[in-house]
Amino acid sequence: MGQGVHVQELPGIGKRYDIDLGRADQRVSVVVRSGGVRDLYVFTSTSADPTAVIELSEEQARKVGAVLSATFFEA
Amino acid sequence: MGQGVHVQELPGIGKRYDIDLGRADQRVSVVVRSGGVRDLYVFTSTSADPTAVIELSEEQARKVGAVLSATFFEA
Repeated sequence: MGQGVHVQELPGIGKRYDIDLGRADQRVSVVVRSGGVRDLYVFTSTSADPTAVIELSEEQARKVGAVLSATFFEA
Repeated sequence: MGQGVHVQELPGIGKRYDIDLGRADQRVSVVVRSGGVRDLYVFTSTSADPTAVIELSEEQARKVGAVLSATFFEA
């Protein structure tokens, strides 16, 4: 997945992707479960507990991913 | 951006994308600023206040987007 993404196998569950945002108080982790469901963990402090956790179906995750990835500037 | 994504112009700022997750207590909004920076808002309650807000550079947003969008199953 390139630099700044740490991948960890979660046996029986799926894979966990930790995305480095270059700051101790901002982290995003995504658990991709074998069935396709994604759990999005957002950390906005140095705590090990996530600030927000959201469960996304594969389709929903693609939608969020598309908005985040896209470069569509009309201005 | 397809179904389930509501786009709103924010004059002088950029665009706001509200992604419908089919639940009142789970919402994701992304503000794409004209310069490329993305603000990711995650709501895990019916409150109008986000549970977590995270600021991503264009590159960071692409990384998170790639992990969310990708379908890479090896199992």
